[in-house]
Amino acid sequence: MTKTSAQRTRRLGGWGFEGAAFSPPTPMLTWLEERLGPSEPFPSFDPATAEIPAAEPLPDLGSAPLSTDDLDRLAHSRGQSLIDLIRLRSGTVSATPAAVARPANDQELEDLLRAADRHGLRIVPFGGGTSVTGGVTVVPDDRPVVTASLEGLAGLHHLDEVSGLATLGAGTRGPALEAALGAHGFTLGHFPQSFELSTLGGWIVTHSSGQESLGHGRIESMVAGLDLVAPAGRLSIPALPASAAGPDLRQWITGSEGRFGIITKATMRVRRRAETLRVEAALARTWRQGVDTVRTLTRAHGSGRIPLCLLRLSDGPETEVALTVGLAKSRFEGLTRKYLGLRGVDRGCLLLVGAKGSPWDVDRSLEQAKILATERGVVWLGAGPGRNWSHDRFRHPYLRDGLLDRGYATDTLETAAPWSKVDTVYRAVRDALGDLPVLCHLSHPYGDGVSLYFTFFFRCPTDPDEAAALWAGHKRKAQNAIAETGAATSHHHGVGFWHAPWAPTEWGELGTDMLRGVAERLDPNGILNPHVLLDPTDRLEL
Amino acid sequence: MTKTSAQRTRRLGGWGFEGAAFSPPTPMLTWLEERLGPSEPFPSFDPATAEIPAAEPLPDLGSAPLSTDDLDRLAHSRGQSLIDLIRLRSGTVSATPAAVARPANDQELEDLLRAADRHGLRIVPFGGGTSVTGGVTVVPDDRPVVTASLEGLAGLHHLDEVSGLATLGAGTRGPALEAALGAHGFTLGHFPQSFELSTLGGWIVTHSSGQESLGHGRIESMVAGLDLVAPAGRLSIPALPASAAGPDLRQWITGSEGRFGIITKATMRVRRRAETLRVEAALARTWRQGVDTVRTLTRAHGSGRIPLCLLRLSDGPETEVALTVGLAKSRFEGLTRKYLGLRGVDRGCLLLVGAKGSPWDVDRSLEQAKILATERGVVWLGAGPGRNWSHDRFRHPYLRDGLLDRGYATDTLETAAPWSKVDTVYRAVRDALGDLPVLCHLSHPYGDGVSLYFTFFFRCPTDPDEAAALWAGHKRKAQNAIAETGAATSHHHGVGFWHAPWAPTEWGELGTDMLRGVAERLDPNGILNPHVLLDPTDRLEL
Repeated sequence: MTKTSAQRTRRLGGWGFEGAAFSPPTPMLTWLEERLGPSEPFPSFDPATAEIPAAEPLPDLGSAPLSTDDLDRLAHSRGQSLIDLIRLRSGTVSATPAAVARPANDQELEDLLRAADRHGLRIVPFGGGTSVTGGVTVVPDDRPVVTASLEGLAGLHHLDEVSGLATLGAGTRGPALEAALGAHGFTLGHFPQSFELSTLGGWIVTHSSGQESLGHGRIESMVAGLDLVAPAGRLSIPALPASAAGPDLRQWITGSEGRFGIITKATMRVRRRAETLRVEAALARTWRQGVDTVRTLTRAHGSGRIPLCLLRLSDGPETEVALTVGLAKSRFEGLTRKYLGLRGVDRGCLLLVGAKGSPWDVDRSLEQAKILATERGVVWLGAGPGRNWSHDRFRHPYLRDGLLDRGYATDTLETAAPWSKVDTVYRAVRDALGDLPVLCHLSHPYGDGVSLYFTFFFRCPTDPDEAAALWAGHKRKAQNAIAETGAATSHHHGVGFWHAPWAPTEWGELGTDMLRGVAERLDPNGILNPHVLLDPTDRLEL
Repeated sequence: MTKTSAQRTRRLGGWGFEGAAFSPPTPMLTWLEERLGPSEPFPSFDPATAEIPAAEPLPDLGSAPLSTDDLDRLAHSRGQSLIDLIRLRSGTVSATPAAVARPANDQELEDLLRAADRHGLRIVPFGGGTSVTGGVTVVPDDRPVVTASLEGLAGLHHLDEVSGLATLGAGTRGPALEAALGAHGFTLGHFPQSFELSTLGGWIVTHSSGQESLGHGRIESMVAGLDLVAPAGRLSIPALPASAAGPDLRQWITGSEGRFGIITKATMRVRRRAETLRVEAALARTWRQGVDTVRTLTRAHGSGRIPLCLLRLSDGPETEVALTVGLAKSRFEGLTRKYLGLRGVDRGCLLLVGAKGSPWDVDRSLEQAKILATERGVVWLGAGPGRNWSHDRFRHPYLRDGLLDRGYATDTLETAAPWSKVDTVYRAVRDALGDLPVLCHLSHPYGDGVSLYFTFFFRCPTDPDEAAALWAGHKRKAQNAIAETGAATSHHHGVGFWHAPWAPTEWGELGTDMLRGVAERLDPNGILNPHVLLDPTDRLEL
């Protein structure tokens, strides 16, 4: 039995839980050393020696329990991006909250916000703390910051089995959420890579997209209703399948990153659990062939001809890492030989195709997908590599820590673009990152476009400021390149403060003004997460 | 060949085009007379005798052509609701625009808005003019009103065949839109009952839902990008398949009913045309059996097992009208005898099931649907009655005019609710309408709920004020009943000024304030359609 997350200890300065790890395999380290040269281990955090800024004194903030414990404050000072790890591991976190509040219900949260508003404090909402865009980072400020942990607002409140609607606390983490629904035979079907740690509320306010988004949709399509507490009051949007009563306020809150208010609970569209999920693998001979196949399969899915839940296409470099030097070497070895022997496939692109349903439905879908893909020249590999993906689907974030231990840093970039722009965006990001090793995959396909997800590596200086500056330089170049192509600022990581300098290029001046208009109505004094979304200051190196 | 809408003359004070009609069949009139008693014909409009308020003098409003022709102004004073027909037919329209502007491009529209803003005029945007909620009605005002017809902003601007994205002018009407896309083998798939007259921009700002929404989705799910002109400036939201850059501004504009700005063009997600659309009919023995079958079929569709594009379930009274006294008597007569002979089905509920795709796919979907439905005790009738539906799908609005000619008024009410509340809402609306003949169907099903669509009839007094007051009394009772159940204020008719007194019960105080916040940013002086959406004054009798 896996221990529940509540019983396990979160790792400070690294992903996940104490005792869990995913070390980079030797061939991967060799591959990095060949490309980046040898490196020095990046410092590893020792909480005992960390210099933690003293807690500022706070006025009475109502009834929510407050913690001023040093390590608790440190653990709530940052999210889980590369730069967060660098700062935490090196003991160079520049600000911590004055306290961590843990409201047990909506009323306690409302009291907290009112008191903070009255006393001129800042509030940073904290769900799973897995933001990779600075969404929960405490930014040095002239006012004390209180982090509001939502862990007390968790659990299944109500399940309407007839309608397939589940009302859940915003602080409910992935595993607890699926366990609670699973006990009744239901699933939300939302499985982002951060699933083990991230929360329902965090998913909703960042436009999260799960690995099975092709089948289940993005998180915002699952929100039927929600409750929000803001400094200006409470908002309760009823659970409705659809409404023509003006603009859909649900979609004004999804993606708002705690800047408009804090979601306390949401009523989600859930489904009966499927009996089977199966992911099979194939190999496209070229990127072009792979992209065309993914687009064609996505449309066959969209028209109902081939129901799928997952499509993912790795480019040549990512395929090379996955099949020959990477994480799955042993599982792929036989297949590697098989595919390398095929004419013209030695620079192939790995394609994963997933379907969910009854065993009969899954067989039929994958059989149809196979016919359609092989007609296009794709080589079908079968279920083996897919099992590998299923096994590792939530483990990859652990790998970053092991790489830093060896002196290599890795970060990801993601965007989305119409199908006709995929090649332009692909080239632009690769060009921007110059000689760095870069892997890319397409995932989360839509009828009109797809997400592009890039992973890049660099040798990490042992000096944390130098490391931060080096990373920020890469990030700026890549993000500028994305903005120049007109692609999305982010597909599912959100804005946080990282992307806040770029997001206005997507909104335009008037769009930015619309967002400000609502922020000012819900939070007139700007106490809620004031540096995310609407503050365009470049703070990448923080 | 059908003449294109551009070559035909719109009827004033009635639906559609001169020369087209759909007279109520004799059995239907008998059915109404039995229930409501005999009636007197409602006055029929004679434009020559109509008292049209004189055009107010206007300042220079930029370069858009302005028409001050009396009949042109009258034709742009109201939409197409029952009350609009009553006012137009009786010559009791209380206000007309001072002029009708016809901007030919975005710049002319922008100039018009700026001039109106400067001179303190009101602007009412006018697409197809088919609003049934007062969305284009000129409300008596202390400032002159200019109606901005969008007919000049029409047509296909760009088609990205690779991405399946079509950029179209907001003033493009249904038939022109499908013809332009059809020439390239594409379709938007949006077929509301108003299809012949309504426009893309109108669909987007009212959350329109087409008859095939189960397959194609609601209009807002098809909007990839859009351009808006507002008094505060222009907003251009890029066409993206998805983005996590903050709240989705597309969804801030969809449903905004011209209150925030005027959409000039939109980039829509389009698909390859399907070869076949087929609608088959079945008969559920009871309402309960029918509702359960629709829900089960919707979920089989949602999981990809049975792809469908349409599901519609009539209640007993609507089935009775359709099969025995109504529009389709002759086509149904054989079937009627067949079904009446079946034990327990003499008070059955007509179910329509539609699928789209290749003939093979359609056969398979309907065969699967039939198996699933008949397992539940539903009697499958086959394709005949479905053909009837296809033939009449856009003709029903003409019927209202013919009924008024005989002194009977009919109006519709629509809402949406979670599946678990369907019976509560159904009963509440029926109870609110008391002894009136009421028909109901479920359509536009979702995983978590469905739309309920009611048609009611009353004997129409020949005095227009009396008729308006009688109608408004019924409407208020029904809308109060809907609000009390917590169901949607409207599923796809929008808010206009009709529903503006009820919509805040759905938004709450804070939600209403959010909408106001954006309206004030985009239109600081409140010149755009100021009485829709956010003005809760009850003007039903206007």
